[in-house]
Formats: sequence, structure tokens, C-alpha cells
Amino acid sequence: MKIVDVDVLDVRFPTSRTLDGSDAVHLDPDYSAAYVVLRTDHRPDGHGLTFTIGRGTEVVVEAVRSLAPFLRGRDAEELFGDMRAFWRQIVGDSQLRWIGPEKGAIHLAGAAIVNAVWDLYAKTRDKPLWKLLADMTPRQLVDAVDFTYITDAINPDEALDLLTAAAPGRQEREAQLRAEGYPAYVTSVGWMGYDDAKVERLCHEARAEGWTSFKMKVGGDPAEDARRAALIRGAIGDEHRLMMDANQRWDVDEAIARVHALAGFDPFWIEEPTSPDDVLGHATIARAVAPIAVATGEHAHNRVMFKQLMQADAIGFCQIDSCRLGGVNEVIAVLLMAAKFGIPVCPHAGGVGLCELVQHLSMFDYLAVSGAIDGRVIEYVDHLHEHFVDPVVIEAGRYRAPLRPGFSAEMTPETLAAHLFPDGAVWAPQATRA
Amino acid sequence: MKIVDVDVLDVRFPTSRTLDGSDAVHLDPDYSAAYVVLRTDHRPDGHGLTFTIGRGTEVVVEAVRSLAPFLRGRDAEELFGDMRAFWRQIVGDSQLRWIGPEKGAIHLAGAAIVNAVWDLYAKTRDKPLWKLLADMTPRQLVDAVDFTYITDAINPDEALDLLTAAAPGRQEREAQLRAEGYPAYVTSVGWMGYDDAKVERLCHEARAEGWTSFKMKVGGDPAEDARRAALIRGAIGDEHRLMMDANQRWDVDEAIARVHALAGFDPFWIEEPTSPDDVLGHATIARAVAPIAVATGEHAHNRVMFKQLMQADAIGFCQIDSCRLGGVNEVIAVLLMAAKFGIPVCPHAGGVGLCELVQHLSMFDYLAVSGAIDGRVIEYVDHLHEHFVDPVVIEAGRYRAPLRPGFSAEMTPETLAAHLFPDGAVWAPQATRA
Repeated sequence: MKIVDVDVLDVRFPTSRTLDGSDAVHLDPDYSAAYVVLRTDHRPDGHGLTFTIGRGTEVVVEAVRSLAPFLRGRDAEELFGDMRAFWRQIVGDSQLRWIGPEKGAIHLAGAAIVNAVWDLYAKTRDKPLWKLLADMTPRQLVDAVDFTYITDAINPDEALDLLTAAAPGRQEREAQLRAEGYPAYVTSVGWMGYDDAKVERLCHEARAEGWTSFKMKVGGDPAEDARRAALIRGAIGDEHRLMMDANQRWDVDEAIARVHALAGFDPFWIEEPTSPDDVLGHATIARAVAPIAVATGEHAHNRVMFKQLMQADAIGFCQIDSCRLGGVNEVIAVLLMAAKFGIPVCPHAGGVGLCELVQHLSMFDYLAVSGAIDGRVIEYVDHLHEHFVDPVVIEAGRYRAPLRPGFSAEMTPETLAAHLFPDGAVWAPQATRA
Repeated sequence: MKIVDVDVLDVRFPTSRTLDGSDAVHLDPDYSAAYVVLRTDHRPDGHGLTFTIGRGTEVVVEAVRSLAPFLRGRDAEELFGDMRAFWRQIVGDSQLRWIGPEKGAIHLAGAAIVNAVWDLYAKTRDKPLWKLLADMTPRQLVDAVDFTYITDAINPDEALDLLTAAAPGRQEREAQLRAEGYPAYVTSVGWMGYDDAKVERLCHEARAEGWTSFKMKVGGDPAEDARRAALIRGAIGDEHRLMMDANQRWDVDEAIARVHALAGFDPFWIEEPTSPDDVLGHATIARAVAPIAVATGEHAHNRVMFKQLMQADAIGFCQIDSCRLGGVNEVIAVLLMAAKFGIPVCPHAGGVGLCELVQHLSMFDYLAVSGAIDGRVIEYVDHLHEHFVDPVVIEAGRYRAPLRPGFSAEMTPETLAAHLFPDGAVWAPQATRA
């Protein structure tokens, strides 16, 4: 099977019209994706995406075009046979790396491409991605990972030992996973731009559906944060978990003061309290607000950042993102470090397709890496799933294991036609008004 | 004066044909720039650039286009009147920030734009940029800086005190600077891809020209590094400084071992020993290889990274880059922190136009921020200056103070025509061969 072409589309959803996804920093996101299709000379095609929030998607699309030559004309089985070498080509090109390295638009673009190759790999093996990964041997998994810059935290031999030690019980865990699903928490009740009545109604509906963990946005006016926290805590009850997410809104000292001020509402974690680049700042905050845990990761751009967050005792929860990290290969590197450091992985999701993607990664982690599920939750946001060919299935606050082959990233043809930016139907009236 | 349009050009120089600029990671750079012209309704225009190394320039060009709407139609004096607000618009757009934030292609693009605005500002005041900055009051300088995320290291009041304390003696320092220039070191003798005869000849020539500090590339095969270090140390003599630059080639433990192995050649500093994102790794290396100093910064993407490098005692020299940081505003933030932490700033230069740009920043630092010049050196690389309207002037290993108004970023019309990618004359034969 040969990859004959790489298509990339700029797909945007006008979520700013209803303020879905709004927070203290991202006031008006239009959830979007740079969407990649690997065209092959045999069915199936490979699908991957990286999540963006409107303007700027065009830059990531351009970056995908710049990486496409590494795939065009390549033999698919050759790629699958040495995923580490393929990954290094994508992130390590001697000229392209300058505009990262391993960060920003070029790394987001790489993630979309890498994930599309893993999707194709899983489809050719007729397995959902989580199952493909869980069935790989420890040696095969280690060989898919680039350990460059993380050997002071974990080296290939340690990783091999860790994966080998996690093997016993895998079949029982898989049976349990298929029967019971994977626990989740819900974010869509507490967007910053929603009015009180809507927030309260959504909390009650979510409770009725069986949710037990809820996330709200903070980082606005302090009195307003406290008022909304009281509202949501009241609506969900004291027995349930309330996560708080500041979306990078604070400086270090400010974060400490603001978390202390919200401590009475018993937050389960404080997420992104400051700059995603500030490892030392996160560590300072974590020491100051304990026992409230610090969570971060959706903007941690590569394994080197996660390594340091773990080395510095800066995070209680590791929030990998499926496509800010450089796709599956780099996610595995972070899962390995998290297992070694004993830090639960609770992926960032929501956006466009992130829930579809990360469920595979958490399920793989449970089956083959950490071997644990206690205290882990995948984020869930109730938007835009209808656009996917294989949308997530949630039951009573848990992700059901996806069963279709691949990485669940494929969007429907109708969605692509309508949401292409700027020419799709949902954008045409806007374009005329502009 | 109104900015009527923003032009952006993809300009590339085929340096890979002679291996100028080659190192252990960047094997074959084609030195390039995303080059920005702010067209005004009155002369002058503003010029800015960000440096790239070939492939990927097109992504940064696209990112400049995405930022251009923030400038088109704007009144120039209004921008000059609140540079902090303007900077925040460029780096803080609620949607565009997702593809950074403050890193990668979008931050490089922002730097080119921000620097073009500063160029225009200096030209309208008929001053070279270093003089414009040095003549600003401490309050005006502080008001140009965004202190978000760095207030735990320096806050606006401390910055004001620091700048006020640096004011005495400024006129004497300026007179001295105009008379004697600013000290430099030379990198162009030691590129990885040059053969021994060329390296030796260049070292002897540089000594004859008055150079006293020389940089070589390391990070290749260990025996080969040692052989080349012996060659260069022999050619420059024991009395001169030898810097070593590993260009991110090593993991942390490897870096320590490799620096120890090269210690006999008396390196003045070891530059970029590992991932530019690895603050803790740099700190570990710095402790292990002392008294050899660690230098880094050309890939430190924003003020938050420099803050941590200083907080963690990870660097002995702070190597700001004029256009990987988000332009002049963010450079000032880093200069302020470096002055507070007592770390000498020795800018990264070379590339395309970096020497032209950073000379202004070091001279401003000497006159108005650190007030110090001892132990500071600006990097100098002897390539591509002939393409600039106001090229650097070097005499006896020192930068002469530039005297023409602006930020020295403007390229000649002939250069732009010949080096436009992919249609310029220097690329046409390549394009035909491809």
C-alpha cells in the first residue's frame, strides 16, 4: 500500500456564536481543525487532525503542506515498520525544525500527520487504535518512541521493563474495559460565556445522566469566579468532584492567592493556573496550594516539558493532548514517564475530535502502560461529535471502548463540505458580511 | 502617518551549497528570512524580519499574513504611543494564540512585525534604534513591556527602579560606545562542514584582524570534536577565548560527559548543550560542568523561558535572539531580568540580519539597562551583510555603533529580487533541476 497524496483541509465550526468553549483567555473560539487525509492506492485512507480555535488554522494547514513531502509516495508498511524513524523525520527535518523546534504550528501539523499514519496502521490491522497499541509487544512500543532529551527521566531499557511489568492482567483489564468503559468528567456545563440559568440547568442534566465529576472555568473577576463556583457547587452537590480551570490566566503569585480564595469550594484540581511554559511556576504553585492538585498539559508542547513538570513535582495530574504533543509516538513517551513517576494521566479533550482521539490513548494506558484506572478521568465535552464517522459513546459518565478500526478521526463528507473555511455553507454568510 | 499595507516576502540564500552555518543539528541550512515591509502613506516604510533556515519560511510568511490585519490601516503614532498594548494584540489574539502560545511560527512572525514597527518608530524620530531606546525615559521603557508571567521575577516597579539606577553615566557610556564600539566574538571560523585547511586559515585571518574570541561547533563524533578543538585551540592560541556550541545535540547526561571530555581545551562556555526547552536539564548541566559556563537562548522562545533559566541558575550567559523572542518589547523584558539576576547578555547573531539587529539591543543594554559592557560580547558571523542597506561595521573585533535611523533590517532591492523564493534568480536553476 502506497500513500499517493496528502490532502489537508481548513475546517471550522462557528462555536463563538454560542460561546461554547469560552474561557478567561479564549473568549470567542471557533473550534477548528487542520484535517489531514492520507490518500492511498488501496482503501482505506488515513485520517488525522490537529485542533485549533479559528484564526491561525491556515498557518497549521500551510505547515502540513510543508511536511507532506515526507509522506507522498511512501510505502505504508515501511512506515509502520519503523515508527520511530518516521517520527524523527517529521519533527527533525534539518531546516523545518528551526520554526519549532518541536513546538507551535509545525509540531501541531506534525501531530495531525503522525496521527493519520497511526489511523491508517490501525485500519490496515482491522483494530481500533487502542487495541492495536495494546497488542504491540513492549519492544515494538519502545521502538516507536524517540527518547531524545528524556533519557535522564526514562531510557529505553527502563521503558521496556515497565511495559513488561504491566503485561500481566491485560486480558482481564481489556474485558473489564469492554464491559464498563473508562471514567470521564464533564466540562461543557461551565463555560465562561454561559449565563447562570444555562449553567444550572446543564449541571442538573449532567447529574441526572450519571456524571460525578464536573469542571468549571475560573480566571475571571475574583468575585464572579466565587459566585459561579458557589452556583456550580450548589448544583452538583458536595459529594461530587469540582475541577477548576484557569486557562493560563494568572501570574504565579496571583495564582496562589486566587486558588486559596477558591479553596472553600473544594476544587479537585486547579488546571493551567499560569503560563504553560512555566515549569518552575507550576512547581511553586503546587507547593503553595497543596493539597489541591495542579493539573496541566493541554499546552505542554512536547515530552521535554512533561519531563520537567514531573521532575519538578509540579503536577498532580498529567493532561496529555492527542495533537499538541507530536501524535501517538510522543504521547507514548509521556505515558511512560507518567507511569514511572506515578502521576495519573487525565487527557485534555473537547475541541473538535479530541474526545474521539484521547479515549484510545487512555484505554491503551490502562491496558498496557500504567495498568491503572483509579483516579483517572478523561475530559468530556458535549459538542461537535455528530460530525464524526465514529463518534464517542458515553454512558453514565464513562467512555465506551470504540470498536471500529482506526483512530476515530474521520469526519463525515457533509461536515467537511459545510465547514470548509472560508467557502463552506456555514461560513458563506459571514464571509459576505465581512 | 498611516500603515496602508503589510508586505511579506520569502527570501532565501543558498548557504547550504557552501555549508556556511552548518552544525551538528542544522546540517545544511539555507539562511532565510520572512521579511516584512510596512507600507506607509508617507515615507519612510518600516522593515522587519525573522530568521529561518530554508524550508518552513513559507509557514512563517503565512503567519505574518495572519497577523497583518492588526496593522493594516493603523495610525503609526498611535502604535508608538502604547507599544505594550500593540504587543499584546500581536501575541495575545484570542484565537491565534492557540497555535503558540508565544512560540513557534506565530511568535517568529510576530517578532518580524513588531521589529518592523520599532524600525518605523526609530526612523520617524531620525535615530538608530539603540539611540531611540536609550533616550526613552525609564517610565516609557517600562510601559513598552508586557510583564505577564514574569512578575515573580521582576515587576514594573522594580524595573523602573533598575532603569532609574542605570541612568547616571549614560552620556559618558554613549560617548565611549561611539568612540570604541561594542566587543564581539567570531563564529564563522568553525562551521561543522568546513575542512581543516579552511578552518585553520580562517582562524589565522581572524586573529590578524584583531579577534580575541572564537566559537566552534561541537556535538559531532567525540574524537572528531576533540581533534577539531585541538586544531582551533592551536590556531587561536591559549591566550584567546574559545566558545563551544553543541546546537542542542545532546541529552543531559551525555552533555555532561561530553563537556568534561572537552574541558582540556578550556572552553569559555558551552552553548545549547541540550533541548532549548529543558530548563532543569540546563541547570543540571551547569552544576556539573562548572566552572565552564552554560550559555543558551537562541531557541528560548519567550520571556518565560529566560525567566526560568535565570531562576534555576541554569545559564552563565544569556543569549537573546532579536526575532525568536517577540521583538524589541520582549527583548527589553529579558534584558531587565538579566540585569536583575546579574547575568551578562551575549546575543545570538549570524543568520540573515541578526548581527544588524542585535547590535542595537546590546548597545541599548549597555547605555540604559545593565550599564555594563565587561564580559559581554555580541556574536559575529561574516556572511550575507552585503545584502543590507545599512550593514554592520566591524573594526578589530568590535561592532561600530550604527548611525543611520532605524533598526538596520532593510535589504537592498537587488537582493530581494534575486533571492525571492522560489522565483528569484539564485533559485531558478535549482527549481528547474528539482
